[in-house]
Amino acid sequence: MGTLGGGGSAGGRGRAAGPPGVRLVAARLFAAQVLRGQAQVTFLPSAAAGAVFCVALFAAGWEYGLYGLAGTAVGTATARLLGVDRDRVSTGLEGFNACLTALCFAVFLGAEHVSTALLAVAGCVVVTVVTAAVVRTLGVCGLPSLTLPYCLLGTVVTVAAPGFRHVWHHGEGPAAFARAATGSTALHPADLARGFFTGFSQIFFMPQWYVGALLLLGLLVAGPRTAAVACLGNATGVATGWALGAPAAQIADGTTGYNAVLVALALCGVFLPARAATLTYALVGAATATVLGPAVAAFFAPSGGHAFTWPFVLTTFVFLAAAKSFPVLARSGVPRPGRGDTVTP
Amino acid sequence: MGTLGGGGSAGGRGRAAGPPGVRLVAARLFAAQVLRGQAQVTFLPSAAAGAVFCVALFAAGWEYGLYGLAGTAVGTATARLLGVDRDRVSTGLEGFNACLTALCFAVFLGAEHVSTALLAVAGCVVVTVVTAAVVRTLGVCGLPSLTLPYCLLGTVVTVAAPGFRHVWHHGEGPAAFARAATGSTALHPADLARGFFTGFSQIFFMPQWYVGALLLLGLLVAGPRTAAVACLGNATGVATGWALGAPAAQIADGTTGYNAVLVALALCGVFLPARAATLTYALVGAATATVLGPAVAAFFAPSGGHAFTWPFVLTTFVFLAAAKSFPVLARSGVPRPGRGDTVTP
Amino acid sequence: MGTLGGGGSAGGRGRAAGPPGVRLVAARLFAAQVLRGQAQVTFLPSAAAGAVFCVALFAAGWEYGLYGLAGTAVGTATARLLGVDRDRVSTGLEGFNACLTALCFAVFLGAEHVSTALLAVAGCVVVTVVTAAVVRTLGVCGLPSLTLPYCLLGTVVTVAAPGFRHVWHHGEGPAAFARAATGSTALHPADLARGFFTGFSQIFFMPQWYVGALLLLGLLVAGPRTAAVACLGNATGVATGWALGAPAAQIADGTTGYNAVLVALALCGVFLPARAATLTYALVGAATATVLGPAVAAFFAPSGGHAFTWPFVLTTFVFLAAAKSFPVLARSGVPRPGRGDTVTP
Repeated sequence: MGTLGGGGSAGGRGRAAGPPGVRLVAARLFAAQVLRGQAQVTFLPSAAAGAVFCVALFAAGWEYGLYGLAGTAVGTATARLLGVDRDRVSTGLEGFNACLTALCFAVFLGAEHVSTALLAVAGCVVVTVVTAAVVRTLGVCGLPSLTLPYCLLGTVVTVAAPGFRHVWHHGEGPAAFARAATGSTALHPADLARGFFTGFSQIFFMPQWYVGALLLLGLLVAGPRTAAVACLGNATGVATGWALGAPAAQIADGTTGYNAVLVALALCGVFLPARAATLTYALVGAATATVLGPAVAAFFAPSGGHAFTWPFVLTTFVFLAAAKSFPVLARSGVPRPGRGDTVTP
Repeated sequence: MGTLGGGGSAGGRGRAAGPPGVRLVAARLFAAQVLRGQAQVTFLPSAAAGAVFCVALFAAGWEYGLYGLAGTAVGTATARLLGVDRDRVSTGLEGFNACLTALCFAVFLGAEHVSTALLAVAGCVVVTVVTAAVVRTLGVCGLPSLTLPYCLLGTVVTVAAPGFRHVWHHGEGPAAFARAATGSTALHPADLARGFFTGFSQIFFMPQWYVGALLLLGLLVAGPRTAAVACLGNATGVATGWALGAPAAQIADGTTGYNAVLVALALCGVFLPARAATLTYALVGAATATVLGPAVAAFFAPSGGHAFTWPFVLTTFVFLAAAKSFPVLARSGVPRPGRGDTVTP
Repeated sequence: MGTLGGGGSAGGRGRAAGPPGVRLVAARLFAAQVLRGQAQVTFLPSAAAGAVFCVALFAAGWEYGLYGLAGTAVGTATARLLGVDRDRVSTGLEGFNACLTALCFAVFLGAEHVSTALLAVAGCVVVTVVTAAVVRTLGVCGLPSLTLPYCLLGTVVTVAAPGFRHVWHHGEGPAAFARAATGSTALHPADLARGFFTGFSQIFFMPQWYVGALLLLGLLVAGPRTAAVACLGNATGVATGWALGAPAAQIADGTTGYNAVLVALALCGVFLPARAATLTYALVGAATATVLGPAVAAFFAPSGGHAFTWPFVLTTFVFLAAAKSFPVLARSGVPRPGRGDTVTP
């Protein structure tokens, strides 16, 4: 993999060639790409933040840390092998969908099965193809791909899984009607605190508050403004859920917050510049995504699917496509380069 | 709101400034925009037709009249606040999706609940964002937005509603499998007459025949040709439903006709010129939308959603996109300006 | 229909005029277009292959042969009447979706009912409109229409059918949750052989192995390379299904293979040139479509819909859109003209 170096690399594509020093540099470059790939789940092209996210996943369980890391690596390597645009690979944009795909399989199909591991490797290859298709198709409308590739693949595989006896080890499939909410809506401070942290950890399907705390630390490493926007998004999600009468258990497990975090980050600082107007817009988006959550869940429930980050993806597409029509928002500087999933023309 | 006047307005954006005369003019301009917004549900940029529609909604129930009027006003005001293209606002194109969104919430969540009213205001703000996104995205293909923004938002909120205890006051959610049609298909003259009028009123979710008669009056105010096309569309829908064996009860309550009315109007006189060839094409479209009706209903039933005007929207998109490939239809004059939802480049 | 001849035709559009010789030429031209329309189901603009396919359908049952032939004729004639691009009509691209639509109605609504026959004629007219819309809309992204028009129309009508008492003659509708796979996964040689041939016949909804053998003969008539790619795709589908634990009964009835056949053909030789790299890519696509199969089935099951060739259509769209981003694949000659559904600019 010696072709990664700036330009003076002597190795051939896809082969570890040249003296040991060159190989070491190549390996370190690849490692940085993989870590950036993990950080890009929250739009950060930062290896440092990715390292903290990696620690958070290992804190949730060594198998999840491994699935996340290996998935990102497989996705990134596939993109390099297929000759995807070098900028996308080096900023980690070819890793984050693979990271989430592998984790999704681990959580919903069982991390301990060999079938899951093999399927995750195949899934991380295919999600790279899906990513290229989505980038190109949405590029026509000037939209980024976000986590749509993972949402597509994750939904397809989790819905298909009960149809394959070597893949599905859970007995009957999960297909059912969504039921009306039950349970208390009274929110205790402990629920609230837990829900705030799990709002971060659920981005990676994890229900532990300390995993969320570590992820928030990763966002802080990337910059205090980013962390602040994420916290405001999370709080908007929780507040919206509480006001509309979401069950307290759902708020406590992070269901009402994780999409709101991602929408707020995307619309304030990544794809639109961070300003007062865009922050307001982003928080309206965060509230919208919170309402979209149970709708997507109810829509996929009869086929056995899950909401994943569909609410974030759909809301962000709508609010980004609309933003160009609102001079109030458009009248502002360009977003920072290298942040988030940019469109290759 | 003094910025509405042609150009010499002295007031600041979003503030009622200047002498009382200017304020009065601004208020009357806004009122005209709101009434045109109501009329644009059937593609009419006519304040007079909008006033008749408004009477029709109040005839169905004062709360529905109020929801419709307030919704249109909130949508129109939001579009102005966000700086949307002035032509779209003044022809009422920023009002009709908000009108239907507010009515939809009133009918499906209960008009009498404070939660519904608050949610309707929020929905009319968000539907303006959705409208901007849809206009821009479909503009790539040269298609108008139609009522897609309302269909999206109405479907999301009605499907999500049972997940929120402060929003849903009807016990268990409506998710269920669609069942095969039962009941008599024998159509009595009284059913037929009722179905003809409710075919108009169901556009606004209303089941009363006299509401439909008032709406037809509004179409007549806009022009006899428009009313004639609407009646032919309605008759095609009813005839298609009857021929295929739709239950008489469904024909009588307007379910088989309302999408056909809208398709006929859209394809003959609004987005395609009114000619013999386009009328035939429009009536084939009206029949197609009638078949699409139970399909959409069955598709959304397991998640608790409703057909709304999805059949009209989907059919019209297909028939409009296809029209460019058929010289038989294309060989004709341009449609009238200001009618229907034109695409901002 | 004398306008088909190169340019010196004396007849008027849509009328059989001129001396008997001209009429005979026109009839033979039309017949060739219809046969090519049948062959285009597998991307072949070959009247000879279409004739063999026609024999295969009659072997499955005279009513299926008739529905397929009449459907293709109605679709082709409608396209000519509406003035669709002449190249599309003459290469059979306006026939194959109509062929599948008519067969789909025959299989799912009952070939013996008059209602089915009438509906099939109407469906073949409407699918021509849908085709024009799909060609134009997907053309924006440079994608072909494939069998998407038939999938859309077939899904709509089969889902809507139980709502119409004169259309649906099977008692209660088929809406149900998808169940987890049961039954043996042990694959006997007889199952394997049967599954290999039915993988071809299921493209046309037919479960007989000898129909599949005849269809394979048709592919051989078109060229040995085409047949080889189809066989490899089929084998990949069966192998993927077997590895993942699809029930043996499903492999034997062709469910795991038919989408894989179409994906392999589309990605290796039709829309991408036939080379080692694209063959690998095509077989990854074939495996992906095999996983997508149960996902689509589970997704449509609660509304009473079927998978049809949705897995092929969706997989091929993704892999074709992505291909442009992979220099490994792009670096190769242009695909053969006239093969498959090309995009009219």
